[in-house]
Amino acid sequence: MRDVRIGIIGVGNMGFSHAKYLQNNEIEGTRLTAVLDSSPERCQWLRENLNSPIKVFCDEDSFFESDLVDAVIVATPHYNHPQMAIRAFDHGLHVLCEKPAGVYTKQVREMNEAAKKSGKVFSMMYNQRTNPLYQKLRELIQDGELGEIRRINWLITNWYRSQSYYDSGGWRATWSGEGGGVLINQCPHQLDLWQWMTGMMPSRIRAFCSFGKYRDIEVEDDVTAYAEYENGATAVFITTTGEAPGTNRLEISGDRGKVVVENEKMDFFRLRIPEPEFNKGYRGGFGSPECWKVDVPVKGKETAHRGITQNFVNSILKGTPLLAPGVDGIRGLTLSNAMQLSTWVDGWVDLPIDEELYYKHLKEKIAKSTVEKDTKSVTLDVEGTY
Amino acid sequence: MRDVRIGIIGVGNMGFSHAKYLQNNEIEGTRLTAVLDSSPERCQWLRENLNSPIKVFCDEDSFFESDLVDAVIVATPHYNHPQMAIRAFDHGLHVLCEKPAGVYTKQVREMNEAAKKSGKVFSMMYNQRTNPLYQKLRELIQDGELGEIRRINWLITNWYRSQSYYDSGGWRATWSGEGGGVLINQCPHQLDLWQWMTGMMPSRIRAFCSFGKYRDIEVEDDVTAYAEYENGATAVFITTTGEAPGTNRLEISGDRGKVVVENEKMDFFRLRIPEPEFNKGYRGGFGSPECWKVDVPVKGKETAHRGITQNFVNSILKGTPLLAPGVDGIRGLTLSNAMQLSTWVDGWVDLPIDEELYYKHLKEKIAKSTVEKDTKSVTLDVEGTY
Repeated sequence: MRDVRIGIIGVGNMGFSHAKYLQNNEIEGTRLTAVLDSSPERCQWLRENLNSPIKVFCDEDSFFESDLVDAVIVATPHYNHPQMAIRAFDHGLHVLCEKPAGVYTKQVREMNEAAKKSGKVFSMMYNQRTNPLYQKLRELIQDGELGEIRRINWLITNWYRSQSYYDSGGWRATWSGEGGGVLINQCPHQLDLWQWMTGMMPSRIRAFCSFGKYRDIEVEDDVTAYAEYENGATAVFITTTGEAPGTNRLEISGDRGKVVVENEKMDFFRLRIPEPEFNKGYRGGFGSPECWKVDVPVKGKETAHRGITQNFVNSILKGTPLLAPGVDGIRGLTLSNAMQLSTWVDGWVDLPIDEELYYKHLKEKIAKSTVEKDTKSVTLDVEGTY
Repeated sequence: MRDVRIGIIGVGNMGFSHAKYLQNNEIEGTRLTAVLDSSPERCQWLRENLNSPIKVFCDEDSFFESDLVDAVIVATPHYNHPQMAIRAFDHGLHVLCEKPAGVYTKQVREMNEAAKKSGKVFSMMYNQRTNPLYQKLRELIQDGELGEIRRINWLITNWYRSQSYYDSGGWRATWSGEGGGVLINQCPHQLDLWQWMTGMMPSRIRAFCSFGKYRDIEVEDDVTAYAEYENGATAVFITTTGEAPGTNRLEISGDRGKVVVENEKMDFFRLRIPEPEFNKGYRGGFGSPECWKVDVPVKGKETAHRGITQNFVNSILKGTPLLAPGVDGIRGLTLSNAMQLSTWVDGWVDLPIDEELYYKHLKEKIAKSTVEKDTKSVTLDVEGTY
């Protein structure tokens, strides 16, 4: 079977980190053949820093007409993800898209439609789906070990970003450049894991975003969101880039117990009999169901970006099921859009969201933006980030 | 110095637990001389079960005119707390009031005014203020060790109550009997600790209460509340009586670090330099402030109800400062009232709340109540509850 020839579109911080492991042949069945970046300075730098057979394109048309690639990794700024993916599908290419899927669900829906029409392999770079802890938690939930989900509480406040981070790129943390802040840049993984592990999307959301609360930016850097589900479950999602040391603690409780994931460890508290059953039979007043703390074996290693890229390649070559199908991207983005929209309208947002209304508000934010940023971009080392 | 002669008004579950340690002479400088309960059956039972010199009154007027008491502990159903306390102040008696201070802030404000006018000692039974963990956390905050408070997150979902609990008393979990559910009965301690430890009250609250979600009751048994403060801090308070095993985890973060209290243990994460200072000087992109995990010595023992009662007696005899001044009771109740009101109006509630509006809504709930409860009361063992 012929190797999959991969091209990377957008070779900034994340794109270059993909280029490094690909040109080192760390992914089986594939090789990096071309990259595309719109910045001439960046292209020059790439020509000097990538291995010699890799072709560097600065022009989009030439890249797509080169016939050098079978598949692309889209790692441009977020707004361009759907547009680049759609163009790739139109050229019969498979697509692995960096998170987020896009900035507004309208464009992502169009991307999903193009993917479907093309019949090509379409994956999202949701590398945290390779974390065995979250895989195990998903398995417990899907198998009913937690029973009916009642409450989800995710405190994910360890996305610390200094002002120097925001100042490192002209597109960062602007309405026109990113279309959001912590929700669109840092949290797409958690927003995805939240819906992926539970298999549920809220019926409505009420959220409270603060914009430029801790940093000199115009987008949200602090969010508290409350969500309700059709089955009566509720959820709270709290995030910020302004807090140190921050916390990453996920608690999911159901009528058969609860799971807490914190400090890369899972604690499972299992009720001996389901709570509703206990409640039905109990006559003693202050008692509560017997609870067992259970050690659940969690096996395997987080394969991260490489794992998702390998899975994408395997899917192209052997039809391996995708860990993160591309069409899933709209779900996490819907949560993100709903949280911003709820803040803007200062009220409830029902799901699925009104995509035109969201887009109208977003365009207004872009039009009213007064950000005048130093456009000098600094390349940051993304080792240790997601 | 003469012993303080104490009377207990309302000798149900809690009242009797106070009677037990008082008649066992576990509190210095005081003795239990009389009790008052409006139920003839209960009075008969009390005559048979209390030590002989303690006089049992079934009639309010006789109790207050007996001249047998210098101070009272009010442990009636919540609605009657202010009314009983006001009557006691009018008779020149000191008052130790069970939580909550009352059901609606209007009546509690009147109680506070009567207390002030009387000049008598007035304390709230906020026994969890005697917990050394919370005392230490308060000290850290008040001394500025956490810096400016930014976020408070209290997940207090381990108030499990079965249907049999609610069925044990006709007044339980009804609008006319209690005026609320988990907020008014189980959570007054946390609502008090929240404001007491931080020394801050929110400027506005948006809350989401569910009424009779897990139990056949008409009041709230599940609450998620979001609060905003004038200094920009935010808070989330989540509680329920329907979840098992539940969680009691409090996290407070400031610009100098964070504290987590869970499993009767405090973890203090201290930034080496305050976050705003780090942010101002840092130029490296993805870095974050150095954080030290600090072991803070927490000394002393939780003296609980006995500790508050002893402090109350000491205040009467020696002018010892109160751990829980009675006038503080309105603060936690304001939080509770605001959460219910926010749900009823489906919107923001500014603090201080509109006490007339709250009272209007409460009266409507009472008028519309369709609860027909078996009025047979069961006496529950309150050992291990608060």
